[in-house]
Amino acid sequence: MTLPAAVLSQLETQTIELPSWAFGNSGTRFKVFATPGTPRTPEEKIADAATVNEFTALAPTVALHIPWDTVDDYAALGRFAQDLGVGLGTINSNTFQDNDYKFGSLTHTDAGIRRKAIDHHLACIDIMDQTGSRDLKIWLADGTNYPGQGDIRGRQDRLADSLQQIYARLGDDQRLVLEYKFFEPAFYHTDVPDWGTSYAQVAALGDKAMVCLDTGHHAPGTNIEFIVAQLLRLGKLGSFDFNSRFYADDDLIVGAADPFQLFRILYEVIRGGGYGPDSPVAFMLDQCHNVEDKIPGQIRSVLNVQEMTARALLVDAVALKAAQDAGDVLGANGILMDAFYTDVRPGLAEWRESRGLPADPMAAYAASGHLQRIAAERVGGTQAGWGA
Amino acid sequence: MTLPAAVLSQLETQTIELPSWAFGNSGTRFKVFATPGTPRTPEEKIADAATVNEFTALAPTVALHIPWDTVDDYAALGRFAQDLGVGLGTINSNTFQDNDYKFGSLTHTDAGIRRKAIDHHLACIDIMDQTGSRDLKIWLADGTNYPGQGDIRGRQDRLADSLQQIYARLGDDQRLVLEYKFFEPAFYHTDVPDWGTSYAQVAALGDKAMVCLDTGHHAPGTNIEFIVAQLLRLGKLGSFDFNSRFYADDDLIVGAADPFQLFRILYEVIRGGGYGPDSPVAFMLDQCHNVEDKIPGQIRSVLNVQEMTARALLVDAVALKAAQDAGDVLGANGILMDAFYTDVRPGLAEWRESRGLPADPMAAYAASGHLQRIAAERVGGTQAGWGA
Amino acid sequence: MTLPAAVLSQLETQTIELPSWAFGNSGTRFKVFATPGTPRTPEEKIADAATVNEFTALAPTVALHIPWDTVDDYAALGRFAQDLGVGLGTINSNTFQDNDYKFGSLTHTDAGIRRKAIDHHLACIDIMDQTGSRDLKIWLADGTNYPGQGDIRGRQDRLADSLQQIYARLGDDQRLVLEYKFFEPAFYHTDVPDWGTSYAQVAALGDKAMVCLDTGHHAPGTNIEFIVAQLLRLGKLGSFDFNSRFYADDDLIVGAADPFQLFRILYEVIRGGGYGPDSPVAFMLDQCHNVEDKIPGQIRSVLNVQEMTARALLVDAVALKAAQDAGDVLGANGILMDAFYTDVRPGLAEWRESRGLPADPMAAYAASGHLQRIAAERVGGTQAGWGA
Amino acid sequence: MTLPAAVLSQLETQTIELPSWAFGNSGTRFKVFATPGTPRTPEEKIADAATVNEFTALAPTVALHIPWDTVDDYAALGRFAQDLGVGLGTINSNTFQDNDYKFGSLTHTDAGIRRKAIDHHLACIDIMDQTGSRDLKIWLADGTNYPGQGDIRGRQDRLADSLQQIYARLGDDQRLVLEYKFFEPAFYHTDVPDWGTSYAQVAALGDKAMVCLDTGHHAPGTNIEFIVAQLLRLGKLGSFDFNSRFYADDDLIVGAADPFQLFRILYEVIRGGGYGPDSPVAFMLDQCHNVEDKIPGQIRSVLNVQEMTARALLVDAVALKAAQDAGDVLGANGILMDAFYTDVRPGLAEWRESRGLPADPMAAYAASGHLQRIAAERVGGTQAGWGA
Repeated sequence: MTLPAAVLSQLETQTIELPSWAFGNSGTRFKVFATPGTPRTPEEKIADAATVNEFTALAPTVALHIPWDTVDDYAALGRFAQDLGVGLGTINSNTFQDNDYKFGSLTHTDAGIRRKAIDHHLACIDIMDQTGSRDLKIWLADGTNYPGQGDIRGRQDRLADSLQQIYARLGDDQRLVLEYKFFEPAFYHTDVPDWGTSYAQVAALGDKAMVCLDTGHHAPGTNIEFIVAQLLRLGKLGSFDFNSRFYADDDLIVGAADPFQLFRILYEVIRGGGYGPDSPVAFMLDQCHNVEDKIPGQIRSVLNVQEMTARALLVDAVALKAAQDAGDVLGANGILMDAFYTDVRPGLAEWRESRGLPADPMAAYAASGHLQRIAAERVGGTQAGWGA
Repeated sequence: MTLPAAVLSQLETQTIELPSWAFGNSGTRFKVFATPGTPRTPEEKIADAATVNEFTALAPTVALHIPWDTVDDYAALGRFAQDLGVGLGTINSNTFQDNDYKFGSLTHTDAGIRRKAIDHHLACIDIMDQTGSRDLKIWLADGTNYPGQGDIRGRQDRLADSLQQIYARLGDDQRLVLEYKFFEPAFYHTDVPDWGTSYAQVAALGDKAMVCLDTGHHAPGTNIEFIVAQLLRLGKLGSFDFNSRFYADDDLIVGAADPFQLFRILYEVIRGGGYGPDSPVAFMLDQCHNVEDKIPGQIRSVLNVQEMTARALLVDAVALKAAQDAGDVLGANGILMDAFYTDVRPGLAEWRESRGLPADPMAAYAASGHLQRIAAERVGGTQAGWGA
Repeated sequence: MTLPAAVLSQLETQTIELPSWAFGNSGTRFKVFATPGTPRTPEEKIADAATVNEFTALAPTVALHIPWDTVDDYAALGRFAQDLGVGLGTINSNTFQDNDYKFGSLTHTDAGIRRKAIDHHLACIDIMDQTGSRDLKIWLADGTNYPGQGDIRGRQDRLADSLQQIYARLGDDQRLVLEYKFFEPAFYHTDVPDWGTSYAQVAALGDKAMVCLDTGHHAPGTNIEFIVAQLLRLGKLGSFDFNSRFYADDDLIVGAADPFQLFRILYEVIRGGGYGPDSPVAFMLDQCHNVEDKIPGQIRSVLNVQEMTARALLVDAVALKAAQDAGDVLGANGILMDAFYTDVRPGLAEWRESRGLPADPMAAYAASGHLQRIAAERVGGTQAGWGA
Repeated sequence: MTLPAAVLSQLETQTIELPSWAFGNSGTRFKVFATPGTPRTPEEKIADAATVNEFTALAPTVALHIPWDTVDDYAALGRFAQDLGVGLGTINSNTFQDNDYKFGSLTHTDAGIRRKAIDHHLACIDIMDQTGSRDLKIWLADGTNYPGQGDIRGRQDRLADSLQQIYARLGDDQRLVLEYKFFEPAFYHTDVPDWGTSYAQVAALGDKAMVCLDTGHHAPGTNIEFIVAQLLRLGKLGSFDFNSRFYADDDLIVGAADPFQLFRILYEVIRGGGYGPDSPVAFMLDQCHNVEDKIPGQIRSVLNVQEMTARALLVDAVALKAAQDAGDVLGANGILMDAFYTDVRPGLAEWRESRGLPADPMAAYAASGHLQRIAAERVGGTQAGWGA
């Protein structure tokens, strides 16, 4: 089946940012399994990301994580990336691995530690100035493990103040995106646990502050596409961290656990005007490839997003609205399901070939011998990981 | 143990509003078990509520549900209540039992049905004018059962418009409180599923619109006291619908399922300035007594809230702050637990007696023979229930 | 795409039993919406089920629910069904709507009430003798709402004794299938809450007792296909009650909420030898069409099962095993996903036509005018429902 | 309040085994915070456990984890422990940290790796012979992250075979206890995810195989006390791993998250004959002290179990049964709650003093300066941790 031209033209501009840390080793508190070929440096991570883009033309930028990707010369790193056909994207701060942050960072009761955490974010913005990044993404591990351990209310007030200081430093074309997470690593309360909190905090900051929605950061049963619709309506959906989960924040490949949910999310993004080159909504991956190969894991992920976007673009919006207005429950649901069940893969393969890309990027990558090559080359040194 | 005078003086002003419908029959989709003595009229429900107040001095007002409690003369109903020592409280609207509302009420695509739903709320405000009620509580069953059945985004926009029309009709001393609910009776999406949505909607309305937090309306694992703290911080916590749950919206007796959670909630209410006669936060019950006796079920409920408030008032806030600031996790937690584990029941019994109340309201009610009396008297007619 | 002959031959024998009560009105504790054309009698329910079978050739039997489907002459009812091309199937007992069962049935502490509940099941077996039904399905509402209300352990022992008495009455070709359910209508504890309990109870009874797995009766996040694999391995998977859910026991159309889960379940059924005419595993629907039309709702449901079975049959088992043995995570997952994403609908449409069936049963039913006809004919009388 | 002698005499024999690993550093995948004084050797862990016992007289044994606690001479280790007043208890196997086990251990498709995992367990039994331990506890990380990655059914069959080989090696007085876990570190399927699986597997082995119930290893909303009652009824509850959780397997201090749940669990243990010196049920802790001090964290934990056991022993079983039989829901619940709300702490303090123990072990430990002493002494070396 050839896909409609209107769908293909919308797919043409799709971009999905890759996280540099997805190419490093990751795991659980029980074990991190290392694999041959894992990058040792930010440059090698970027090279891997560029490889994903080479096979898919879907991932033109790489997000950095500070301090995991700290380098002396970010301009040089940007040129390195550019030479490989990709750019540097979102800067992710990290205030969860320094001993000082055991009891909080932007929410800490100790003024000195809170200052340190704020300063780290200002330093991240300095890096953004050098990399030309638009977004500073803030995910906080702040929270408590036991009732009474911290003052929930006071922490929220300090968070607001800290964010205000960070926000004030943003350049005109820079944004702050605040991610929320239901739980982990804190097990009783999390300082930004839900979209409501993230929304209330960024709404207080101003137009350059937005919400980041990580698809794995919700309570069981949460209707995520509703949140997408609501945040778009409120003008505050800044970006997605895509991944999938069966239980908690499993960080599996996006679309792997509940493909229909991914379809519904993407449909609602499109419905709400969040899709396309002019949209403020950035698509990113945030995943862990604990047991599968990392580069093909990322290729699989961007393809999943692309395929599901194609299905969501196929929804007959006019017929759907008519069925909805008529109270035709089965008819309306059927229109949505018809798009979901359409096999867009042959059409996408054909289209990829027409653009000089491999019809089947997974097979092409496997056949390329790239994984074997980097495994042979990248010997010695310390493999990248979370450094927990 | 005699409770500290400072605690007792704060308990003195505590009031918990009773829902008239708690005295009617309720159940599940599988079965509603009727019991002898169940009220047949709004007046009999009010009489039952007055009985709860008589034994506890905790429940001076009764919330009405329209149309379940529709009468010809609300002024007369108010006088009837007053004669029994109670007042009429919150007015609850109902747009979930008319066939027109099968696919929505304030969110409906059909302008006529939406108008009807808005008008119902205006009629409720008319009643409030007669009863002197402050609060109009809106809980919506609006939502869909299947993906695609409705347009999530469009429904939210229509909801905002409907609420605006209702809000405009409020008197100076009247409030609109918007309740949220995770799911049920809609099983795919709910139009007001979480505090974030309720907050965003009422924030758009103005100062007289607040959020109603029903303790049973959250996703599994949700930290409710965090929401309490956040809404108080945002100045938008209008009222509580107290009940408890193990699974979904079980509507069990408040404090029955997780007493420690109730303690944490009440602590955070106090911490955030939400407790006391000057607070804008109203305490209400919203429960179903499916298998237990209703009047003692309500007595048990208000006592649970009172006892847990006493424990929460016992928290040594100064010591707690010191432990929190020192990063003393076990110490801070221990201070909270010390209050929770304190047996306040003897002290409350003593205090009740000093105020001319029964030391043990449950035992006193059982000994009063009241239940047997109303069972004998209330013969014939149609027992009140949800009329589903 | 034409489906492989090996797949079509396996689909040829697929049967899915319909529940008579799916054609009656259903709803939530908040509201039951009635619809024109709803059956008034067991005969009309059977006629509706026969209509589903007429359009799909997938549903040759109807399950009855006693007492909802009580008639004087079951042999006559069987002939009535036969004349319409369908047979009578599983008999479902009901011990949740009599006032005596407020605190339990097969688990009740009162010997007389427990006797009554056992006798009801014996009467159901009498009916089975007349209808020629193989299966007695027992789902119990037994449980408690409050800690302490009942003695969990004693109730389990009485359940075992009651089941033993019922089991003893089974004929040689009859079976008892025991359904489990996580919660509802009981909200603290359920006497058969999980597959382990159902398994332990039926294992103690003997070979004619099996477990019934209702896909909506699990805790959030439960891996249902694991339970399928385990019960097949233990030789105790007797039947499925298919439906779907987003939150609790939503009883939505099977496959509507998480189609990929349905695929995984059906794959594991096939993998474990639970599929086919010689399998002991019976496929049934157990759903509520609260807001959608009932007959097309059932047609949609059996088509969903058929389509998903076709996808599961397409899995390349040899390639899958090779990838699994090689530790090729992405490869193995890809093989499964390839089958899932295959659009089997055109192939099934073609095949249906070749068998004299409508290519698109949903469209054919809509075009038939049947719903309008029964709405016009079925006037007066009392529409069937749960009678709660 | 002085506690009844009957309660005190039952408390006298209470023992709670401590996990050696609770004294090592632990954390999340994001960060492990090290603390001064953390043990470097198995001996230091045992010394810390002995300290907990010294202050509480509740923890006379320590569980070992192999290989984390591997030593050359287990007899010498046993004598070392004995000199400190404690004994060596359960041996825990570990097949989740060797690279070979990336895709499974006792369930692996590769015969050699499976053999290695079996042999590890046989080696653990060799250690048990030397330490005199009764129990081999098996918790498996085996599972998969993606649908299709593994063959669920085949893995279960291999598990059964592996367990059989291990079971055959047990001495007459030794037991195998099989723990189940809902998820983590595997995120799609776990090979022993629920009590039903653990029960089915150990039932197939024989009388010396039992189930281990970790209180944090269940789906949200699971009624754990029901499982306790059921396993006791089936004669298969071997041991508890106590901890608490708000979300997933948070491994918080037992009783910290939901004290009422702990009460209900302990009540059901007592009710089912699982409490006391003659019971086959072993009480153990399995916790992580990520942010709180470890030794006082363990003291707090055993005290929580002791206090809650005292409350559970206070339940008036005769009155409870009478209320249950009478269908007196509020009465029965009230009897349970009365015990729960009783403040047993003063009575326990008094009783501890009468036995030569500190009235308040937490305060006594804090005053002892022990933590400061070991922090000063234990300098250099590598602190114990999970070594992930």
